[in-house]
Amino acid sequence: MRMYDLIQKKKQGGALTKEEIGFLVGGFTSGEIPDYQMSAFLMAVCLKGMNEAETTELTLAMAASGDMLDLSRIEGIPADKHSTGGVGDKTSLIVGPLVASAGVPVAKMSGRGLGHTGGTIDKLESFPGFSTAISSERFLQNVNEMKLAIVGQTANLAPADKKIYALRDVTATVDSIPLIASSIMSKKLAAGSQVIVLDVKVGSGAFMKKLPAAVALAETMVRIGNRAGRKTYALLTDMNQPLGRTVGNSLEVREAIDALSGQAPDDLMTVSLRLAELMLVGCQKAASTAEAGETLRRLLASGKAKEKLAEFVARQGGDASYVYEPEKFEEAPYRLTVPAPETGYVAGIDAEEIGICSLLLGGGRTTKDSKIDLRVGLRLFKKLGEAVREGEELAVLFGADLDALQAAKERLLAAYRFSGQSPEVPPVIYGYVDGQGFHPEETA
Amino acid sequence: MRMYDLIQKKKQGGALTKEEIGFLVGGFTSGEIPDYQMSAFLMAVCLKGMNEAETTELTLAMAASGDMLDLSRIEGIPADKHSTGGVGDKTSLIVGPLVASAGVPVAKMSGRGLGHTGGTIDKLESFPGFSTAISSERFLQNVNEMKLAIVGQTANLAPADKKIYALRDVTATVDSIPLIASSIMSKKLAAGSQVIVLDVKVGSGAFMKKLPAAVALAETMVRIGNRAGRKTYALLTDMNQPLGRTVGNSLEVREAIDALSGQAPDDLMTVSLRLAELMLVGCQKAASTAEAGETLRRLLASGKAKEKLAEFVARQGGDASYVYEPEKFEEAPYRLTVPAPETGYVAGIDAEEIGICSLLLGGGRTTKDSKIDLRVGLRLFKKLGEAVREGEELAVLFGADLDALQAAKERLLAAYRFSGQSPEVPPVIYGYVDGQGFHPEETA
Repeated sequence: MRMYDLIQKKKQGGALTKEEIGFLVGGFTSGEIPDYQMSAFLMAVCLKGMNEAETTELTLAMAASGDMLDLSRIEGIPADKHSTGGVGDKTSLIVGPLVASAGVPVAKMSGRGLGHTGGTIDKLESFPGFSTAISSERFLQNVNEMKLAIVGQTANLAPADKKIYALRDVTATVDSIPLIASSIMSKKLAAGSQVIVLDVKVGSGAFMKKLPAAVALAETMVRIGNRAGRKTYALLTDMNQPLGRTVGNSLEVREAIDALSGQAPDDLMTVSLRLAELMLVGCQKAASTAEAGETLRRLLASGKAKEKLAEFVARQGGDASYVYEPEKFEEAPYRLTVPAPETGYVAGIDAEEIGICSLLLGGGRTTKDSKIDLRVGLRLFKKLGEAVREGEELAVLFGADLDALQAAKERLLAAYRFSGQSPEVPPVIYGYVDGQGFHPEETA
Repeated sequence: MRMYDLIQKKKQGGALTKEEIGFLVGGFTSGEIPDYQMSAFLMAVCLKGMNEAETTELTLAMAASGDMLDLSRIEGIPADKHSTGGVGDKTSLIVGPLVASAGVPVAKMSGRGLGHTGGTIDKLESFPGFSTAISSERFLQNVNEMKLAIVGQTANLAPADKKIYALRDVTATVDSIPLIASSIMSKKLAAGSQVIVLDVKVGSGAFMKKLPAAVALAETMVRIGNRAGRKTYALLTDMNQPLGRTVGNSLEVREAIDALSGQAPDDLMTVSLRLAELMLVGCQKAASTAEAGETLRRLLASGKAKEKLAEFVARQGGDASYVYEPEKFEEAPYRLTVPAPETGYVAGIDAEEIGICSLLLGGGRTTKDSKIDLRVGLRLFKKLGEAVREGEELAVLFGADLDALQAAKERLLAAYRFSGQSPEVPPVIYGYVDGQGFHPEETA
């Protein structure tokens, strides 16, 4: 088999066989197939596409290119949740303890943040002492004993995907649904869970700006997951503004704790509950999402979900008292209030720019080795569609550097758009995808 | 400017500006743009195309990436001829002396053969002592004094093309008309002639198998040449079988000498005359191809064209007596006759396979550094449409190694197809392209 012929076949719109995809992924991972051949192939995929069988084989081959987590010793049906990336997205911190408290085993691999989006591990490290550096033995034991454990992503998880992604990033071959879907799903399959719930973000702050493309991506990922024998769902959620009201590591943890007490902003509460519902249904802990919703609301009201967070934090070495006394989280040395520059309605908030504000304050990484300040970030008092008076508090910034605060303030103001008329506010949930296809949300 | 953005633009079907193409060609030639970005770009060009302005700018940028031959000191209008590559194509050996004898200055850069197609320089080296290693001073002087000189291609001619071609060759991005056209024309523009006549081969043994694609390539090259201020024509000629009856270096030289005496096979005679006519018209040595044809036939009949070959060979150090006593060319030690395996008509001759027979006999290079035997090759007694009796001589092979002769014989027989009925024979000339477009040949 020659890579040349595979490039030629894809260029002419042909479909690669399982053997051809295995050759391609194996050869590229081992270094036998050079970058310049792979990038020509990736461009041909961008322009000619891949059918469902090819995309699945690509995903399976990338998943199998490195370590495959063996979760067979976990009792019950382990479930995982993945977001395509958004600003202010702290749902993992909420959904994990919530579904674990319902008896769903969650054995999660998480990453650190890069650029304008945060990472779950960074956020959890706001709890003094918390660590994801636990042995795989201990990891599985924790899941069996208390249903929830989180480890850092191993270096050898889907190395083919890592190498292909690095090449796509510099050859303008990122925006291809088969390539995006296989990249995400290869890591999820390698991470071993039987039930996978995806949160596909839609809107100006997401990679998928429009609903039809987001639905196509969601459908592709759900089909791959189901073909690979994992029960897979995707929820389509809004990212035309940050989720919830906080951005920044410990600030987001505090908002997640509020959510586990049932007291978070509506959008964050809704997305978290809907993701958790799909996980319960997938793991056969509920017969319907309605039944799952009832169970989950009971667990929130009873305090069981919050208790699960405390138990989990303590088990991984963190100070669980912070869960009950969130005022203990160290605050950044300075806070800067941002007053509204005009009277009217909030007509637009550029989520990516808000993420960059937090980054500027020191809350995110510009490179993999950047040090981050877990205390900094921002809280938004006004979100899309809300009325505002000139001078009223729009947001507050938390920082450790006055120049950075000033720069972030200007950037935040520029990220907001105002209007004299009440604007149309996008829905929080657009619908979900399961094995039967897309189910749009019924609007009231 | 970032290469990433140029790849993205082309992927989306956009047209690159002159500045963008300059950045791309300069950056790739200098090594600042890596192979993996260039190959992604080349694949996008294969699938999205390039418009005429882009193709012209690409050609000009590649031509300017290295040495540009300055032919301004040549008296008259220098003309050049280029073939897209065929088996048995010895027209340069005929057309050069022929048009030079009509007063057209021919300052030619030629290459050596690689693979199944031969090179003009290898062929000329069949004359003992002949050399293309002459100074550029001497080269220009020869052209001014006797209208014809040939040098080897300098290492620094269109280096961008060389580097891009090497990458296309391993990334399945060869078959793109803008890329093929710019590759050929960049070298022709750098080689400096004012009039360029292209011989675009069409058929099973050519890169362009079908006439419409060949016409599109020819039109693109002619437009590029004309836009760059060179008078450019393209003749579309058949390559469904080898041209003439000989393949192999000294064998082809002998057939070319026959042609300069007006005694070569019809197809070879026709193609050579038609190319020469276009060169004469382009250089304003004739008002029409008809007038040019008369002049050329007179030069052949008077022996002037053949005299020009002898003069040229002598001027570059070769033994010109071979032109008049071609039996002096050393023959290979063995000859092997190939009898026809059946009675009928020749219905097909795979030109590429015939080229490979000569290669097997030692007449071509498998790598750039292969040694070649100028004596070996083959002569075909039967060509397309000709009747043949079983056992009658089909071809004769000339070789220095009996095993190679046997292998070549089998390959040659496999390259022939026979039929009980008289097959349709393709025309020798399909038409020509000038600034006004394609002029199909009128068929009688």
